[in-house]
Amino acid sequence: MKCKAAVAWGPGQPLKIEEVDVQDPQAGEVLVRMVATGVCHTDAFTLSGEDPEGIFPAILGHEGAGIVEAIGEGVTSLSVGDHVIPLYTAECKECKFCLSGKTNLCQAVRETQGKGLMPDGTSRFSINGEPIFHYMGCSTFSEYSVVAEVSLAKIHVDAPLEKVCLLGCGITTGIGAVLNTAKVEEGATVAVFGLGGIGLSVIQGARMAGAGRIIAIDINESKFEMAKQFGATDCVNPKKFDAPIQQVIVDMTDGGVDYSFECIGNVDLMRSALECCHKGWGESIIIGVAGAGQEISTRPFQLVTGRVWKGSAFGGVKGRSQLPGYVEDYMNGKIEIDPFVTHTMGLEDINNAFDLMHEGKSIRTVILFDK
Amino acid sequence: MKCKAAVAWGPGQPLKIEEVDVQDPQAGEVLVRMVATGVCHTDAFTLSGEDPEGIFPAILGHEGAGIVEAIGEGVTSLSVGDHVIPLYTAECKECKFCLSGKTNLCQAVRETQGKGLMPDGTSRFSINGEPIFHYMGCSTFSEYSVVAEVSLAKIHVDAPLEKVCLLGCGITTGIGAVLNTAKVEEGATVAVFGLGGIGLSVIQGARMAGAGRIIAIDINESKFEMAKQFGATDCVNPKKFDAPIQQVIVDMTDGGVDYSFECIGNVDLMRSALECCHKGWGESIIIGVAGAGQEISTRPFQLVTGRVWKGSAFGGVKGRSQLPGYVEDYMNGKIEIDPFVTHTMGLEDINNAFDLMHEGKSIRTVILFDK
Repeated sequence: MKCKAAVAWGPGQPLKIEEVDVQDPQAGEVLVRMVATGVCHTDAFTLSGEDPEGIFPAILGHEGAGIVEAIGEGVTSLSVGDHVIPLYTAECKECKFCLSGKTNLCQAVRETQGKGLMPDGTSRFSINGEPIFHYMGCSTFSEYSVVAEVSLAKIHVDAPLEKVCLLGCGITTGIGAVLNTAKVEEGATVAVFGLGGIGLSVIQGARMAGAGRIIAIDINESKFEMAKQFGATDCVNPKKFDAPIQQVIVDMTDGGVDYSFECIGNVDLMRSALECCHKGWGESIIIGVAGAGQEISTRPFQLVTGRVWKGSAFGGVKGRSQLPGYVEDYMNGKIEIDPFVTHTMGLEDINNAFDLMHEGKSIRTVILFDK
Repeated sequence: MKCKAAVAWGPGQPLKIEEVDVQDPQAGEVLVRMVATGVCHTDAFTLSGEDPEGIFPAILGHEGAGIVEAIGEGVTSLSVGDHVIPLYTAECKECKFCLSGKTNLCQAVRETQGKGLMPDGTSRFSINGEPIFHYMGCSTFSEYSVVAEVSLAKIHVDAPLEKVCLLGCGITTGIGAVLNTAKVEEGATVAVFGLGGIGLSVIQGARMAGAGRIIAIDINESKFEMAKQFGATDCVNPKKFDAPIQQVIVDMTDGGVDYSFECIGNVDLMRSALECCHKGWGESIIIGVAGAGQEISTRPFQLVTGRVWKGSAFGGVKGRSQLPGYVEDYMNGKIEIDPFVTHTMGLEDINNAFDLMHEGKSIRTVILFDK
């Protein structure tokens, strides 16, 4: 079949709307008609060329929601008409990782996914017979995408896809990092570095966990109002202080925070986030993705005196088992998504969505395929 | 009163046996007659001059055991004749840290202890009226020492002091890092970097925890036999491989270990220890003390993909509450100490104990004050 998709032809180039050929789903694969997709910083990171794993030409996008249009041989967990969210972190329920009970980092399709291919090592997208690569196993910037069965969460049929698509990445990542990775407890003090979609979701998660104090940190003060709306109790602009931000936070909190979250991908701030933690028990969670080859560092004394350095990917959430519950939490009012959707537009305007993000004017733009 | 003590007059100089004046214990202080003391790498580190907090002249030693000789005003938890182990990590049971339930890093006497002084800001040791500094709140290289009440664990009166003195530092640190900090579970795979007293104690702790595989790593193969005796299942000399040691361990273990422990103080090995951990759940615990100003580093991806970086001080053990239990575990055969004591000698030979340690010939030398 043929459909419209936004194709990334090369690093640094705007996306181009093209008519692409989409092959039928093969064994263990599913054809999804995309209804909506968010545009996330990770898409921009790959498009910029800074992502060492970036491959072109490709169809980006990994924060989508859609409806099953057709299933390949052997697909048993999904049927035509099911509503789904594509997962860049699969859940096969069979690999060492899925069975460990300790991580959501299923490795079932990881190797081919990293190469922009389906599990059999080929692509389902092409233009004039030339293959176009998949992206993060999702490729949601296309009217139709082929996704592995293990990479699809079946969600409640009544959930509004133009909202819950954002649970495919940022919101779940932020909330999950608080609830699954850090396990923030009631009354805890939390610092959040960076107030984009992830940071705001961390704030939301911290409020859900009953944190007593939530310190929101950004150099863009226009983000403070929204941060407070989600539950931030203090907003701090590091540029307003001469002292390093970790010292500012330590002074504000009588020794440091119980939990900190880095939601930007800046290795210097990862260090600040660790060092603003309280001696004896503070835990810092890295969520942001740093540039290729960049390293974090600190004095080992920081750890020997009780701080813990962790990271979180997709909030530690197992997509097929747990994401449907996040969708229902949205439907019953426990998780807020609507304030994140600052803009909506059709696929043909997708480069505008990237511009809004780079200018710090949007939290999330949602692309609506029927708009 | 006057007594003999080994005085560190300056960095890099051998200790000198001197007659020192010991003042009576003041309020909240206790005079301890030392019966035995271990000689630990940390003593050597400070003596070398590399310890940025090292102060001279001082009476070193922090791995001792003795008997209460006199108590100062207001001391209620100890009486003359009690058997005690001095603690470089106090436990006041009143500060924010003690009450947190999350750490053993009591801060009650920390500031003055770091300055080589008693909590009132003065020293109890002098020679010809010139003060000699305390060390780590213990100063066990002296026939008599004055120690804060909150820095003394009261232990079973039948415990052999010439053995359980080693529970004052290394053995407890290693076992505690496994049981308290890492909480190693049955069947887990463990890597131990460095086979000194701490490393061997980590191995012992891992065996106590029921670890399924314990990989001992050192460039000194003469330590392998003892490591096996304590429970190591594999011994690895990194010099025998071209690949980095973390890669060797990952290959040996189908993806990495569940827990690793750095017991040396080498920041490069701290990185190796982290990176040999299994993706998704591996935890690395830093125990070794690095040189001043040295930093650890890694790619944040290591943490985002599920590894955890932690540290441990005194094995997370609360000295007054928990150390007496360790002593009893020795007495009832659950903890082995005897194989650690490779040499014993009198105080006058203490420089020989440092030599044996530097030459890698001893695990622990115990100084016996009546020898």
